[in-house]
Amino acid sequence: MLPFKTLLKLDKDTSTPLYQQISNQLTELILDSIIKPGATLPGTREMAVLLGVHRKTIVAAYQELEAQAWVEIEPRKNVTVAEKLPRINPRDFNKSKTTSAYTRDTGFEVKKIIDFPALAPQSTEYRLVINDGFPDQRIAPIDLLLREYRSLFHSFSHRHTQNQSSPMGSLSLRSALVEYLSDSRGLNIDTNNILLTHGGQMAIYIAAKILLRPGSTVLVGEPNFFLANLIFEQFGAKLVKVPMDENGMKIDFIEQFCKTQKPDLLYIIPHHHHPTTVTLSTDRRIKLMGIIRKYHFPVIEDDYDYDFHYNGSPILPLASGNHGGNIIYIGSLTKSLTTSVRLGYMIAPGNFINEAVLVRTILDYRNDYLFEGALAALMQNGEMRKHIKKSVKLYRARRNHLCDQLQEQLGNVVSFAKPAGGLAVWTKFNEGFSLPEISKQVAINGMFMNDGKFYSYGTHHLNSLRFGFAGLNEKEIDETVAIIKHVTDKMGK
Amino acid sequence: MLPFKTLLKLDKDTSTPLYQQISNQLTELILDSIIKPGATLPGTREMAVLLGVHRKTIVAAYQELEAQAWVEIEPRKNVTVAEKLPRINPRDFNKSKTTSAYTRDTGFEVKKIIDFPALAPQSTEYRLVINDGFPDQRIAPIDLLLREYRSLFHSFSHRHTQNQSSPMGSLSLRSALVEYLSDSRGLNIDTNNILLTHGGQMAIYIAAKILLRPGSTVLVGEPNFFLANLIFEQFGAKLVKVPMDENGMKIDFIEQFCKTQKPDLLYIIPHHHHPTTVTLSTDRRIKLMGIIRKYHFPVIEDDYDYDFHYNGSPILPLASGNHGGNIIYIGSLTKSLTTSVRLGYMIAPGNFINEAVLVRTILDYRNDYLFEGALAALMQNGEMRKHIKKSVKLYRARRNHLCDQLQEQLGNVVSFAKPAGGLAVWTKFNEGFSLPEISKQVAINGMFMNDGKFYSYGTHHLNSLRFGFAGLNEKEIDETVAIIKHVTDKMGK
Repeated sequence: MLPFKTLLKLDKDTSTPLYQQISNQLTELILDSIIKPGATLPGTREMAVLLGVHRKTIVAAYQELEAQAWVEIEPRKNVTVAEKLPRINPRDFNKSKTTSAYTRDTGFEVKKIIDFPALAPQSTEYRLVINDGFPDQRIAPIDLLLREYRSLFHSFSHRHTQNQSSPMGSLSLRSALVEYLSDSRGLNIDTNNILLTHGGQMAIYIAAKILLRPGSTVLVGEPNFFLANLIFEQFGAKLVKVPMDENGMKIDFIEQFCKTQKPDLLYIIPHHHHPTTVTLSTDRRIKLMGIIRKYHFPVIEDDYDYDFHYNGSPILPLASGNHGGNIIYIGSLTKSLTTSVRLGYMIAPGNFINEAVLVRTILDYRNDYLFEGALAALMQNGEMRKHIKKSVKLYRARRNHLCDQLQEQLGNVVSFAKPAGGLAVWTKFNEGFSLPEISKQVAINGMFMNDGKFYSYGTHHLNSLRFGFAGLNEKEIDETVAIIKHVTDKMGK
Repeated sequence: MLPFKTLLKLDKDTSTPLYQQISNQLTELILDSIIKPGATLPGTREMAVLLGVHRKTIVAAYQELEAQAWVEIEPRKNVTVAEKLPRINPRDFNKSKTTSAYTRDTGFEVKKIIDFPALAPQSTEYRLVINDGFPDQRIAPIDLLLREYRSLFHSFSHRHTQNQSSPMGSLSLRSALVEYLSDSRGLNIDTNNILLTHGGQMAIYIAAKILLRPGSTVLVGEPNFFLANLIFEQFGAKLVKVPMDENGMKIDFIEQFCKTQKPDLLYIIPHHHHPTTVTLSTDRRIKLMGIIRKYHFPVIEDDYDYDFHYNGSPILPLASGNHGGNIIYIGSLTKSLTTSVRLGYMIAPGNFINEAVLVRTILDYRNDYLFEGALAALMQNGEMRKHIKKSVKLYRARRNHLCDQLQEQLGNVVSFAKPAGGLAVWTKFNEGFSLPEISKQVAINGMFMNDGKFYSYGTHHLNSLRFGFAGLNEKEIDETVAIIKHVTDKMGK
């Protein structure tokens, strides 16, 4: 219920009768939409007590409102604000517009600090969705996660101590990650080398905030993960674009650059690069490690997708090699589980983590320690490994199936290289097949497929798409390909 | 299992025998802690397949390692890395230090961007904790929340569409909030006026990032919520400190300031101010609204604690009045539920929200839409209101009990005013009773009580504490007061 006592200011020393003061002020509250059409007002007895006036005064006020058609009264029943408000004169109408302060723009000027169109919220109306490379929510061990969450909640609740939250992240999950990252990718760290974040994106933001100033130089791939570019640019950094081919970033370019100028940051995605899915080759990797050790500049290694390798043994991250304390390694559990699981991490030397914790403190003070504890439990009881093993098997089959279908059904429409890992195929649409146009056409057929513009941020239009296969079963993959074929057949004619 | 195939680089064209290449490289991996003491190596058959060599080569390599005491072999059983590694010569030792890249500092210089000591993680060893003003986790409706989460997960999983996440926050929770905020505090908004964030702190950060530049002027209370001051300062803003008394900020000071200079931002906490818990009086409130409408500068109204009023009707937020689109209203569900629930929101005109969504996109790309959907369900099915009603009743009694106990037991030690709302009593320790010293002494008695330094950030030492009562039952309140009495009795002598 609204706090009518404070909303209505009654003045007993004025000539306006109390009942009229009440009816006038209630009218204003209705006009300002603070009291909404259809809302029920307190009964006369209750309102009288609330306002400290005689009940008859309220009866008179309500009758006045009813006479003006602001409310409807059923005897001994509710007093309801009319669904259709009475006509009001222009003065009142203007007043009403002024006071609905949020229906207009800000009273002050808002300076644009990020030069990018807002990402349109994805409609839930589509029957089929090709995402950017996300895991299949349907197989995510959410029930197991919630069971652990619930059990932790009840165990915490029986202790006196409360507020286990910390901007660094829960110790239990950091401990579990030390073991998990050592076992899965040879990272030799302890819990003080880890900052947990609400998703990997936050870890990139925090690292960039510490490292970059207006005018800083950042080496990035061309193309690059567009949200990383956006972060660097809004900190005022200058992007130097490193050419890429099927073996990843051209390290020779980086070497040449370092001979003239020390970069302030290198941002690299060595495994299944975003968006192109290529993997840095071993010889380039060795060369890069030498350059990092020689020139001592900070490197963000974004390894968002490490868990999914399909062709034999994975290559270890750069971070597990001898990098002289220069690599800030960023990973995420979101891709390993499901998009609703927001858990990223930053691995770095302790002095960097100390500063990163402070940044996390001011931009996101607390973590959900129960959620993190539940994730730790899944890592410790082996469910996480089991889930990833199962996922790799399933996604390998889906990748193969999608690549077969693209080849068979859309051989003249698209070009692609089968990725060694990750959750998407980088699919280039050939000349004559405009991706934005196809995206529009498939939407008419009830399917969402993005128009590829994000991937082309800051570069020429690539007419390419990350075709996420992990979230689609084979039947769904067939459907998506059939719809694209249907649409492009018509365009090709 | 580690990817031995990529970790071990075998060269068949060199004079070093293969078995020795293998044993040498395994030794290095052990020295670099990539293979940990106690770890089990793959069996000889498995390793032979992995590396594509004859099994006898692996047997020879393992025997070599055993001879040097790097591993222990049980016949037909495991090959385990020794728990106690053999002594290594200085050259090797140095090498080992170099390659454990995360045990040292960064290879580059880390510039401090936030001038604040890291918040020490709170030990879980305490038997009793006086927090800063958090709800009682033990009564939080987490089971209901998890039930909704689980049910949403299963219902989403049966749809083709996935990835309902959005940087603006889930539509279901924004819709539920429109109704909840209208009903509880007269806010007249629609879903496009809301940005959901991972906690209220993130909403303050995002607003400040949009509004502030180096040299900007921010009006803040003296004292003020220290994390807000930290945010403003690290964006390079200059803080102008507005004096406060028992009726909140001195609005006359703000008026005088505006006559000479338009502020870039006013940050205000009108209800149960942090840290002092005072509430802005009605006359100051009316005066402030006039100033905001006259000078048109942005205002952040931080209303972190609105749900908890104990003395009659609450005063509506400034945001529900006629502010000409100048108020950015920030709230949180964390205080209404429990610290592990991270959900804040920003209410602002649409043009401001558009920019805020972009900032959220780069610093925290996605939300947990299942979690948000579950919260929306609790709002829609009335459980949220029920929980808050129950909490208010319980916390009112706890507030009264704590104030009684402070008066009776510690009348000569502390001064305080009974707060009209919120979850903490602002407790000043009198001269002769040093809070940092008391904090140390109570820790010896198994109780955590912060030393008050955070509250004094950027001002003189206040020797005061927010004594959170909501998380303590009456017996626990008695215990905390008794421990403080025990400690201060000794100091008073």
